[in-house]
Amino acid sequence: MRVMVLGGDGFCGWPTALHLSAHGHDVTIVDNLVRRRIDDELGAGSLTPIATPAERLAAWHEVSGNPLGFVELDVAADYHALTELLADERPDAVVHFAEQRAAPYSMKSPAHKRYTVDNNVTATHNVLVALAAVSPGTHLVHLGTMGVYGYESVPADLPEGYLTVTYPDREGRPRSREILYPTRPGSVYHLTKSLDQLLFAFYARNDGLHVTDLHQGIVWGTQTPQTGRDPRLINRFDYDGDFGTVLNRFLVEAAIGHPLTVHGTGGQTRAFININDTVECIRLAVESGDRLDDGRVRVMNQLTQTHRVSDLAGLVSSATGAAIVRVANPRDEADENALAARNDQLLGLGLDPILLTEDLLLAEVGLARRYADRVRRSAIPAVSYWNDSRRTAAATTEPDHSAPAASDIAGGAR
Amino acid sequence: MRVMVLGGDGFCGWPTALHLSAHGHDVTIVDNLVRRRIDDELGAGSLTPIATPAERLAAWHEVSGNPLGFVELDVAADYHALTELLADERPDAVVHFAEQRAAPYSMKSPAHKRYTVDNNVTATHNVLVALAAVSPGTHLVHLGTMGVYGYESVPADLPEGYLTVTYPDREGRPRSREILYPTRPGSVYHLTKSLDQLLFAFYARNDGLHVTDLHQGIVWGTQTPQTGRDPRLINRFDYDGDFGTVLNRFLVEAAIGHPLTVHGTGGQTRAFININDTVECIRLAVESGDRLDDGRVRVMNQLTQTHRVSDLAGLVSSATGAAIVRVANPRDEADENALAARNDQLLGLGLDPILLTEDLLLAEVGLARRYADRVRRSAIPAVSYWNDSRRTAAATTEPDHSAPAASDIAGGAR
Repeated sequence: MRVMVLGGDGFCGWPTALHLSAHGHDVTIVDNLVRRRIDDELGAGSLTPIATPAERLAAWHEVSGNPLGFVELDVAADYHALTELLADERPDAVVHFAEQRAAPYSMKSPAHKRYTVDNNVTATHNVLVALAAVSPGTHLVHLGTMGVYGYESVPADLPEGYLTVTYPDREGRPRSREILYPTRPGSVYHLTKSLDQLLFAFYARNDGLHVTDLHQGIVWGTQTPQTGRDPRLINRFDYDGDFGTVLNRFLVEAAIGHPLTVHGTGGQTRAFININDTVECIRLAVESGDRLDDGRVRVMNQLTQTHRVSDLAGLVSSATGAAIVRVANPRDEADENALAARNDQLLGLGLDPILLTEDLLLAEVGLARRYADRVRRSAIPAVSYWNDSRRTAAATTEPDHSAPAASDIAGGAR
Repeated sequence: MRVMVLGGDGFCGWPTALHLSAHGHDVTIVDNLVRRRIDDELGAGSLTPIATPAERLAAWHEVSGNPLGFVELDVAADYHALTELLADERPDAVVHFAEQRAAPYSMKSPAHKRYTVDNNVTATHNVLVALAAVSPGTHLVHLGTMGVYGYESVPADLPEGYLTVTYPDREGRPRSREILYPTRPGSVYHLTKSLDQLLFAFYARNDGLHVTDLHQGIVWGTQTPQTGRDPRLINRFDYDGDFGTVLNRFLVEAAIGHPLTVHGTGGQTRAFININDTVECIRLAVESGDRLDDGRVRVMNQLTQTHRVSDLAGLVSSATGAAIVRVANPRDEADENALAARNDQLLGLGLDPILLTEDLLLAEVGLARRYADRVRRSAIPAVSYWNDSRRTAAATTEPDHSAPAASDIAGGAR
């Protein structure tokens, strides 16, 4: 299949492009390389030394024999170039990662909030308008987030996108209706993925576009078999307070002898997925595009496990001996929540989940140790505060080095 | 109170600014005057000859003794000027009309779709970010639309913003939860108002902003007591296929001897409100800002009646003798729907609805006749097609001059 990967230079996009190429697909990467410029802005680059796009493409061609296309293009800023490209290529599928993807970065300042909304909404809307205009048969596969469901403790497992609810009609009789699961985004970043959902629903209904929205958990891990084939293919690894996701951040902290920084009680339960499962899920989504219902967005939950943050810290600590410190939570969120979610659809398509083991954790710590001299310690703490009350709380709260209470894993993927 | 009216040069914004000023509020209009430039784009100006902003302000000062502030500023394009203005003025309330408001205009072309999303989402998000940064105590009053609820026939009266639904928990026991009413926007314009709802919910929760979202019906009528005080204060009147709302369009058609153009069967039921009630509802919303719950957006339905389009055509026809012609519907929507909605909150605040009467209709037709020589007949038909199948249907469907079937009013405001 001909597949265009928007955002194909990023942490998930790059290994996805290689995985699809390795599976025989004809892949073109479209990226404006903004993530590399944000490295410069934050002064905290990838832990791993990533090659330039030209080096990456040459290396992949050398080791695999497969060419990768590459177009430097800002999907949010250059609608006309995007439309021409889609009209020329008429890809079977477009995988859309071209969005600012870090919650803390989205909350750093008014400028970061505005950039995240402008970039993400405009990118998604441009893709939809362009597809409706010049390539309505293309299957759009979008990376959403489990965060659109929110992190309140809810009475039932999170379904995949839709929820059947009941409410009384005029005569008081119960009537049922299927709705998009009510969204409760916890950051401006998550908010943009909630906005995306409404855009997809509209263009699927009005223009018959074929859309799959993948609500992904937090990604951990770094390398895939493809990115490991040559040092020039190495994937990026973010450890900083803005882009470093929680488990990858713990692993780097363990590698450099920094205490594991747990936000608040660490009682937050989150959904996770290994990067190797991410790329496989996207392949499964792309290759099953012919199973879509007309006019209805296919929503699939892309996670394999849920973990409580304090449990993850405990696992990493017991595997590595790292200390744990509890710091004030910069995020405005509940201290504790339960979370369990369905992932039947991707399992049904053949996903065989990679579950978290001490061996895998230690392999990641090993990778982090290899590049430990590249870590800028001052970039590790998360200092993007959700609002003034969180900023004030952080200024007046001492770090707590006592051990967090153990707890059972809350919920899980089913 | 100090009130800033964003979009205060437009069809609803201008009479709202005057109404608030007449009630003793200190009003500043903020507008980029884009609606006047769209008149040039479409070659179909206001039926009524509207004065320049400077003439309008001078006239109001003369007749009322009250100065109106005016700042020419693009809320979507100039965040920094907006922030400075809000920091300087710290208004008690901001009334936000600064959005592209026509469904057909939003569906004309890829460029119009993109303009509507970019302008409306960015304008609303800029206002929210700016308020959170420099004036978090300001009450934001936003003009939404009844169209966010969608026009499917639903089993119960439309509530005001929120819906309590039930679904089974893990053990199969029914659990209740209040959610934002599931949105089903029927155009890109309506879509942007659905997106706005999620923006408001997030900033109310995360930053404690005080927000009222008014889901307005279709506005009919033109003048208010204030806009009638001097010819230079006259309000705009849109009759064209893009900006002319259905009843105002029928009234102009009747005035110039054009058959009343009913889309499809005319079985669509819509919510309506007179322009004089619009401005009064906004005053009631502004003046009741101290009743808001913390962290929860107040949503009020701003309508007074619902009518079936074919019934409206019948009313105008019997009052004026105008013929009726049914043309292919350019919109992708159901041929027929029932609609009834609650409006308890604005009634509770003191709204005394102006109901549709033949006298009021004839007064509007009289106004339209006065300016009939300004009508460009070719601008009347709605030719913005929602998608290819609607375009094709229009190309192959003959206008039907037989009388539409009479029907009972479906639903109503309760």
